[in-house]
Amino acid sequence: MKIRKVRSEGLQHLSYFISSEDEALVIDPRRDCQVYLDLAHEAEVVITWILETHRNEDYVIGSRELKHYVPDARIGHSDATDFEYGESLADGETLRVGAMKIECINTPGHTPDSMVYALGDTATSDDPIVAFTGDTLFVNETGRTDLVDKDRTAEFARVIYDSIHKKVLPLGDGVIIHPAHGAGSVCGGAIGAREFSTLGYEKSNNIWLSMDEDQFVEEKLSQELILSPYFSRCERLNTRGPPLLAEMEDPRSLTVDAFEKLLDIEGNVIIDTRSPNNFVSGHIPSSVSLELDHMGLFVGWVLKEDQRFAYVLENNADFERAAAMLYRVGLDNTIGYLAQGYAGWEKKGNPTEKTRNYEIEEFKRLVDEDAVKALDVRQPHEYAGEGVPGAIELPLSNFIHRMDELDKSESYATLCPSGIRSLTAASLLQRANFDSVGIPLEGLVGWKKKGYSSES
Amino acid sequence: MKIRKVRSEGLQHLSYFISSEDEALVIDPRRDCQVYLDLAHEAEVVITWILETHRNEDYVIGSRELKHYVPDARIGHSDATDFEYGESLADGETLRVGAMKIECINTPGHTPDSMVYALGDTATSDDPIVAFTGDTLFVNETGRTDLVDKDRTAEFARVIYDSIHKKVLPLGDGVIIHPAHGAGSVCGGAIGAREFSTLGYEKSNNIWLSMDEDQFVEEKLSQELILSPYFSRCERLNTRGPPLLAEMEDPRSLTVDAFEKLLDIEGNVIIDTRSPNNFVSGHIPSSVSLELDHMGLFVGWVLKEDQRFAYVLENNADFERAAAMLYRVGLDNTIGYLAQGYAGWEKKGNPTEKTRNYEIEEFKRLVDEDAVKALDVRQPHEYAGEGVPGAIELPLSNFIHRMDELDKSESYATLCPSGIRSLTAASLLQRANFDSVGIPLEGLVGWKKKGYSSES
Amino acid sequence: MKIRKVRSEGLQHLSYFISSEDEALVIDPRRDCQVYLDLAHEAEVVITWILETHRNEDYVIGSRELKHYVPDARIGHSDATDFEYGESLADGETLRVGAMKIECINTPGHTPDSMVYALGDTATSDDPIVAFTGDTLFVNETGRTDLVDKDRTAEFARVIYDSIHKKVLPLGDGVIIHPAHGAGSVCGGAIGAREFSTLGYEKSNNIWLSMDEDQFVEEKLSQELILSPYFSRCERLNTRGPPLLAEMEDPRSLTVDAFEKLLDIEGNVIIDTRSPNNFVSGHIPSSVSLELDHMGLFVGWVLKEDQRFAYVLENNADFERAAAMLYRVGLDNTIGYLAQGYAGWEKKGNPTEKTRNYEIEEFKRLVDEDAVKALDVRQPHEYAGEGVPGAIELPLSNFIHRMDELDKSESYATLCPSGIRSLTAASLLQRANFDSVGIPLEGLVGWKKKGYSSES
Amino acid sequence: MKIRKVRSEGLQHLSYFISSEDEALVIDPRRDCQVYLDLAHEAEVVITWILETHRNEDYVIGSRELKHYVPDARIGHSDATDFEYGESLADGETLRVGAMKIECINTPGHTPDSMVYALGDTATSDDPIVAFTGDTLFVNETGRTDLVDKDRTAEFARVIYDSIHKKVLPLGDGVIIHPAHGAGSVCGGAIGAREFSTLGYEKSNNIWLSMDEDQFVEEKLSQELILSPYFSRCERLNTRGPPLLAEMEDPRSLTVDAFEKLLDIEGNVIIDTRSPNNFVSGHIPSSVSLELDHMGLFVGWVLKEDQRFAYVLENNADFERAAAMLYRVGLDNTIGYLAQGYAGWEKKGNPTEKTRNYEIEEFKRLVDEDAVKALDVRQPHEYAGEGVPGAIELPLSNFIHRMDELDKSESYATLCPSGIRSLTAASLLQRANFDSVGIPLEGLVGWKKKGYSSES
Repeated sequence: MKIRKVRSEGLQHLSYFISSEDEALVIDPRRDCQVYLDLAHEAEVVITWILETHRNEDYVIGSRELKHYVPDARIGHSDATDFEYGESLADGETLRVGAMKIECINTPGHTPDSMVYALGDTATSDDPIVAFTGDTLFVNETGRTDLVDKDRTAEFARVIYDSIHKKVLPLGDGVIIHPAHGAGSVCGGAIGAREFSTLGYEKSNNIWLSMDEDQFVEEKLSQELILSPYFSRCERLNTRGPPLLAEMEDPRSLTVDAFEKLLDIEGNVIIDTRSPNNFVSGHIPSSVSLELDHMGLFVGWVLKEDQRFAYVLENNADFERAAAMLYRVGLDNTIGYLAQGYAGWEKKGNPTEKTRNYEIEEFKRLVDEDAVKALDVRQPHEYAGEGVPGAIELPLSNFIHRMDELDKSESYATLCPSGIRSLTAASLLQRANFDSVGIPLEGLVGWKKKGYSSES
Repeated sequence: MKIRKVRSEGLQHLSYFISSEDEALVIDPRRDCQVYLDLAHEAEVVITWILETHRNEDYVIGSRELKHYVPDARIGHSDATDFEYGESLADGETLRVGAMKIECINTPGHTPDSMVYALGDTATSDDPIVAFTGDTLFVNETGRTDLVDKDRTAEFARVIYDSIHKKVLPLGDGVIIHPAHGAGSVCGGAIGAREFSTLGYEKSNNIWLSMDEDQFVEEKLSQELILSPYFSRCERLNTRGPPLLAEMEDPRSLTVDAFEKLLDIEGNVIIDTRSPNNFVSGHIPSSVSLELDHMGLFVGWVLKEDQRFAYVLENNADFERAAAMLYRVGLDNTIGYLAQGYAGWEKKGNPTEKTRNYEIEEFKRLVDEDAVKALDVRQPHEYAGEGVPGAIELPLSNFIHRMDELDKSESYATLCPSGIRSLTAASLLQRANFDSVGIPLEGLVGWKKKGYSSES
Repeated sequence: MKIRKVRSEGLQHLSYFISSEDEALVIDPRRDCQVYLDLAHEAEVVITWILETHRNEDYVIGSRELKHYVPDARIGHSDATDFEYGESLADGETLRVGAMKIECINTPGHTPDSMVYALGDTATSDDPIVAFTGDTLFVNETGRTDLVDKDRTAEFARVIYDSIHKKVLPLGDGVIIHPAHGAGSVCGGAIGAREFSTLGYEKSNNIWLSMDEDQFVEEKLSQELILSPYFSRCERLNTRGPPLLAEMEDPRSLTVDAFEKLLDIEGNVIIDTRSPNNFVSGHIPSSVSLELDHMGLFVGWVLKEDQRFAYVLENNADFERAAAMLYRVGLDNTIGYLAQGYAGWEKKGNPTEKTRNYEIEEFKRLVDEDAVKALDVRQPHEYAGEGVPGAIELPLSNFIHRMDELDKSESYATLCPSGIRSLTAASLLQRANFDSVGIPLEGLVGWKKKGYSSES
Repeated sequence: MKIRKVRSEGLQHLSYFISSEDEALVIDPRRDCQVYLDLAHEAEVVITWILETHRNEDYVIGSRELKHYVPDARIGHSDATDFEYGESLADGETLRVGAMKIECINTPGHTPDSMVYALGDTATSDDPIVAFTGDTLFVNETGRTDLVDKDRTAEFARVIYDSIHKKVLPLGDGVIIHPAHGAGSVCGGAIGAREFSTLGYEKSNNIWLSMDEDQFVEEKLSQELILSPYFSRCERLNTRGPPLLAEMEDPRSLTVDAFEKLLDIEGNVIIDTRSPNNFVSGHIPSSVSLELDHMGLFVGWVLKEDQRFAYVLENNADFERAAAMLYRVGLDNTIGYLAQGYAGWEKKGNPTEKTRNYEIEEFKRLVDEDAVKALDVRQPHEYAGEGVPGAIELPLSNFIHRMDELDKSESYATLCPSGIRSLTAASLLQRANFDSVGIPLEGLVGWKKKGYSSES
């Protein structure tokens, strides 16, 4: 039994490729699924099962996509939801992959169809040695229970409490757990940075497991978690079966002229994945800044399903990586990328635009003088810490839905710790033709370094 | 001006990626065209022209495929043929790519639509510095003139003589030439191993250029060149515009069970790309041996357009490379590959087969005793050299069309210099249920090493 | 806490790179240590500790080599042995790397200096979550206790029994274990194919842990394990501190002529890493067959420290990989490789040699007729299974030390399951000028397939 | 005959790997010579000759380094200089590599020992088809003649004129030329962007070849070329034989603490290869900005042979590439790199520094008010074009030697077209403790875009 973890940046989504003898099992594949095919090539095995831990909300699952290339593989998920593809697995059902025995355990709570897959290594015994706990049990955390129906959060909290205590923990202290998300995911409150654990360790150290049921429910109710409108799109696609990337239009390499024409079409969005420093120095007007290394989580928040996307890249070889970030959350209409890059655009004398970058001192002075309004785009749970006094709180996760609360003739400067998210927000304001938009690229980190107070 | 040559194995086809400033030109792209997109990425340029030197016969051209990914690129070819796609270029027309001036010169003879593209570097002057001579002028050779109509070989020889002497050589001694094929290609007699030259050098050293017209025609008529039935398929596709690989079925990773089922279907062919040594030791019954490193040239000869192909590979990661060899000659029906490899097949207890490998001494004894008939599968021009006395001459290029001349109840051993081509032939006989098939893997090289005579 | 396992082929040696925050820890590095530097680059961390689980016997450790490139890293090992480099760690000592707390636990038995390193993730708690159990506790196995002094095997068995039950198991059922070896290693009897486990799982499923002390000792005494003379070399080097590869002669690319001269020098060995099929078809006289993918374990058995090595490779790009297999077991005198490969050697008309490859039927007939003596080179524990009746048992692990028991004028054929090890043995006989040496390349697998009996 | 060009960034140095049959020739190898070994591996050939076109001045040659790994290879250079290594080649001598005949032609002028190597492809004829023209004949240019002795520029101009007209051009119009440098090199005035040509083409289009001798000399005398003090170091090393990198101290991965200690040692230089935008935002005090993609040419100008170098990198995986840029010009004392990067430095709370980045408008205002003095660090030949009125001209090629002409208490802003070179200069001023140093990162490109005049 060999386990390979495949991490999807941004989403902090963890999928798994597990092989035994000449067969393999994939858990929760992502849509850009070549990675699993490559692992299968390398190990000279064939993928026989693709298992889903639940109908995911924060990304679009790649089961159908993977099966497209491995047609004999079977897709399995819980019979508690009426999926329009794949096979239904009953609670307690067992499967075989190579010398592995897989017990399928329905653990409702996060969703009704949440499953834990417990693997035994039959070369040794039938006892489970590893469990893939999906969004039911994380390291230091448990699955959130507010997504199915926010009003029934408490009810689902009792259900997951039951699932964990009656079905997961009894698997035994010596069972290693591999959850579906790591630190930074929106699917749990404060998931640990370590991406693996054991049931024994969690029993002793995961605070959620030492609570009694009422306390557990109360804590669940008090958790403030990101709820982004794109979740419903993912859930819908994941229940129906997502469309195949293999059957979509191939993205194109675009000339400067072709790119220019895209600008005129309603619904087209230019995504600029270059570094923030480069973006503020110059970019194509109305483009949205989504820096390559960090865009993974944010694209779902600020882009819309019916938009069409074209890219400006630091290196064109990064195109597939950038487009994958969008596919992963169901933003499928990628048109192509600017072949000659921003340099080519500039060279042809096309219009460009800057984003005003304030030095921290200047920013403070302007805010103090009320010449500029600070817009803090962090998430609600981050506001508790330090910040800029008087800043307007407008989390990036809802930014595009609440932007019209702002006054276009006002002068704004967006804020976040390191300038990444705030530049995305600033670019959205520029795109919406706000009169005056700026940003202190050094962000709250710079503010704090200067020793400025966060109290007004 | 930067020139990058892209060599297609087996076919000895040479295509070119030429960039200048932020634009690029591709000459005679192959169908697996990602290589040109990668070169464009690397150089941060956009491909603006795709030029074809003629309607090729020995491979399927990738112009439409490449344009699919670079929609603003224009495809150009001669107006002397009625192509069903792309743009017609008149003799003498000039194009611009970056700082390059491209003169389009119609040089009929090999085909009526043969073109030479002469490039000037306008940063220096308008004089041509490089010419892409297609199948008109090779290093040490000139294009064959028997393909359009074998009966009109002499007529076309006069035409190409004219084209070379009146339109190509006048470009000037200092013009570098890059032809469409290197040594080993079927598109010329004895093309030099060096893949570049200059007009000045060829004028002094290419024997064809020192002949007078009548002598030239006579020599053309006496050349014995491979004429493979797949040429007409390529020519037809290249005139109509080849179908897009991007729109075809994606190939699949197949289990042993799925693979087994393929065997029963008429028209399915298992291609085994493993080493000859491994193939003779054991293979799936009825599979065809086409060793990965050498299959490029032979697949067009021994496979048919309406067959469907599945692969057994040494490493599954080689799958795309193997499938490309078929796509390049218009064999498009690739089904997929055996995910667990030959080892997986064997492990499941499925039937396997060997190919009898004779030691040279044993082979000689059996031939001498007339217990085995030697089948020499080399090409006609190779027979002139040494060989095995009394061997039946059946060139691999026509093998599948002449196999029925053989007696299935006879005992045959196939022969070629190094065991590659002869093993392909032997596997075709086994596939056709011949009673007794063998091969001396050491081939004619081994025969010669033993000091055996080639005279009967 | 991120754990990356680095597997060394052949030796089935497992080393670990564990990072936390911006620091990293390496456990039991191998000598070709670029892999750890690359992992550190990728993670943008600095290696601060290099920990050894004991003075290894089956490979030469890379701690000093790695420290050469990361001079601030500290090397730690048990204070129970008088190492001539690094720092002594007392039982119970704790270290910090990033947010990890490392408890150093002396667990004598396999060697007096055996250590288990238990890691806590202080971001959560001080409880151990992972333990690196070296050669003390494997999956399904425990460390062998016969290496320090075969006569004191029982005594050390009691010591390791104590270490495991009093010091390792009390760490808690929920502790994940990562041992120093996987299946196929000579360091344990029947190590499981799964390379990880938990203490809880092992307590229930590892048969050695359910024995009482006397039973445990008895079983240890009855285990038949490979004891190869090269173990003492590794142990000696690992106690003193191995010489630095960085300070050795750089290996050279050698012409055919230079290679030819090497043959005349006593103590030079040509290692041919090509496939068995290619080796039997032709090789340089006196070269030793050590196929690239399998040579890892065998080189320590059949080569000597004072020999000098030059390579014949399928692809010259494999040279570093091949040379590393030797470095890893302290065979440091690599001269270089044949730049033009075996083809270049042959082309120059230099002498070559074959190894006679018998078809299984022929082999059986010759053995039955006593015309050939079968030499079974498997390990003692393998002889229990099926075999060829009457075969002489001469395990490869001691082959070079017992070859003189054989009669050079006799006709031998070497045997092992798949032809790899037996070809190494056959090549050693050829090198020693035995009169008649052959091999059935299909080996015992082929023998069994034919349905031949293993009973005489 | 296959020719592979190996381009060294920055230096615009072109070296060549030419193979024929199973042998290869390398012309003017660079010191980081693994690239040639890899090419030899790929082609399965052995390097038999390493030829130098002359004792180079702008980089340190890698002949000895390459021979270290390929000991049978022979190094050849002209007998006109008393080299302390390698073999002397007489004018007219011929060599063989595979099927290539190499004519060694002494073409003095650039240096007395300048050689042109003309290659014939004996498979076709003995006529030369390619000539490697070193620094004698470039595309659109001819070699400079001021380096041996500036006072004898005219004398050497006559000599090179003779060499070109009497020895090179007579090789024939159809000879392809491959020079030792491309556009941007300091070894010629205005070398063309195209890196290849033919003698026929140059005769018609290279203006230097149409001049009569006196006109040629006059033009040579009027050329203003970069003369950097590091040239004499390279020439000295290249005559004596450069020290072997293989025998130098291996560079180290350094902790923040170790890095901090380096700062205190006289002669240590921190090289920061991150992007200009990142450098101005924050860097380690006294570090020198040398952006990775452009540092190649400048390191020779601004660093000294007796300094020791440590690196701060965007990605640590770039370390070898960065260090190679220094080795190539004989700056051999590389210590190592900061393992945790600039982020790790900042995190530990160590001191950091910014470089003031002026917006163009602000810069103009300050210059107009004389509050800041503009320092134009372009090369002399660039000053002819547009610039900032009143700027002090201090070319980067001599910057470190003329920095003491400046007043440390003055306020300076450095200038170049794109902010790369000027940031290097600014960082040198900061390192030298100038009171006030700034830079308009947008440079002269930004100045021009604003439409500001270059006339005072």
